[in-house]
Amino acid sequence: MSNGTERRRITRISSGVREEVSDLIATEEPLAIEVDGTVVSTTMRTPGHDLELTLGWLVSEGVVTSPGEIVTAQECVDRPTPDEEARLVRVVTRGGKAPQARLTPTSSACGICGSDLVERTLAQSPWPLGLDEVRIPLPQLLGLPDLLREAQRGFSGTGGSHAAGLFDTKGNLVVAREDVGRHNAVDKVVGHALAGEMLPLRGHVLQVSGRASAELVHKCVRAGIPIMAAVSAPSTLAVDLARAAGLTLVGFSRGEGCNIYSGAERVVDA
Amino acid sequence: MSNGTERRRITRISSGVREEVSDLIATEEPLAIEVDGTVVSTTMRTPGHDLELTLGWLVSEGVVTSPGEIVTAQECVDRPTPDEEARLVRVVTRGGKAPQARLTPTSSACGICGSDLVERTLAQSPWPLGLDEVRIPLPQLLGLPDLLREAQRGFSGTGGSHAAGLFDTKGNLVVAREDVGRHNAVDKVVGHALAGEMLPLRGHVLQVSGRASAELVHKCVRAGIPIMAAVSAPSTLAVDLARAAGLTLVGFSRGEGCNIYSGAERVVDA
Repeated sequence: MSNGTERRRITRISSGVREEVSDLIATEEPLAIEVDGTVVSTTMRTPGHDLELTLGWLVSEGVVTSPGEIVTAQECVDRPTPDEEARLVRVVTRGGKAPQARLTPTSSACGICGSDLVERTLAQSPWPLGLDEVRIPLPQLLGLPDLLREAQRGFSGTGGSHAAGLFDTKGNLVVAREDVGRHNAVDKVVGHALAGEMLPLRGHVLQVSGRASAELVHKCVRAGIPIMAAVSAPSTLAVDLARAAGLTLVGFSRGEGCNIYSGAERVVDA
Repeated sequence: MSNGTERRRITRISSGVREEVSDLIATEEPLAIEVDGTVVSTTMRTPGHDLELTLGWLVSEGVVTSPGEIVTAQECVDRPTPDEEARLVRVVTRGGKAPQARLTPTSSACGICGSDLVERTLAQSPWPLGLDEVRIPLPQLLGLPDLLREAQRGFSGTGGSHAAGLFDTKGNLVVAREDVGRHNAVDKVVGHALAGEMLPLRGHVLQVSGRASAELVHKCVRAGIPIMAAVSAPSTLAVDLARAAGLTLVGFSRGEGCNIYSGAERVVDA
């Protein structure tokens, strides 16, 4: 499981020629999260930075906003077979409060709607992003995808992982994480920041490698990140949530240009 | 919400020039699924084909394997605001049995592992894929990504959606669906097949637009689909599950070549 990848023998076909090769593949394994005695989530993730993943997830769920609210967080490893590990992170929170509902909880009402989600995210948001007067020069913003890819080169190189990188507005990398699940990559970044007492992440930018879903916008709002940029497209609910929360949402950020879906005033000329 | 897209005014920056434009964005909205009186899931999805999405999800969860097991499945629409719909699909199953655990359920044990997931998927699998002696010629297999993109042109064109297409081994399209969530796109395809009494989907190929996660392999296994091809990378657990289940798993399928991670004997020369 070193470096989030494993090798498998595969059949590669190129120009009609078959060969058996050993290939690097991004690892996907379940991680269970136990909070105050109850397993509250099992996520499929790439092993590594599991404590960060857990801490970031707790921030996204609105359970904690500072490291002082966590008494202990420890990894527990089982070995059901010699080759395999079963992992659980066990968290004890100060006061022993249970996690609040997920972004998309089951509900006994007849359906929920986007407005509900937007309202709930904002109501539980400890740090209003609209007050963050950070500005980022356009060249710095457009340079982030390349900087993130550079940081990724130190990772798996399988082409099978999503990446998330936290930057300052000068383009300096604070932390980058990779995972088969893009929400996990963001949770790991936010967990790293929580452990470093960096929350709220005022004045920072989160660059992600793929698309921008409402879930990722929600995670930024919870962590106090005022600007999120994606290499690919956002969804309508991502745009609507970003606008309501005062988050600057950038999509299709590809070197020569980008789309700004919300909060364009934070992106300034050089 | 027509066609799974909506318009938003955005700021587009190209070569340093800003302009305000109206842009098409893939719709993301929650859908709640109620089975036998209990809301068992809320998923973020692109509206459209919600009944298919629900039926396919029920197949993936191991709740049903034929349409006869469902007494009624109906859409229920609320209007919390004039602009917005809240949607729920209400299902009554024959015998009123509740859905079984998800692929990645919470667990009270100390962690779960990939072996558990593989074993559970196989134990509950009604149609052993290993018995499916289907063969697909390499040129037909490598042509599927283009055929899927062609089918997608009839959809949103936002670049913000994942696609899944069910084909026969001659490359004839049975059904294609698009969604902001790739698992939803696959559920919609499988739900379409369930409604058409096509399960198990022996002799068929599922082509997906993105990566191959263990969750997508699981959905193919449950629907009896013997071959799955992805445009991008699989994860280790996707590969391991495919091998255990006897599913042919293809990745990086890009016209001139591909990687075969499992069941390479089903891909034959033309």
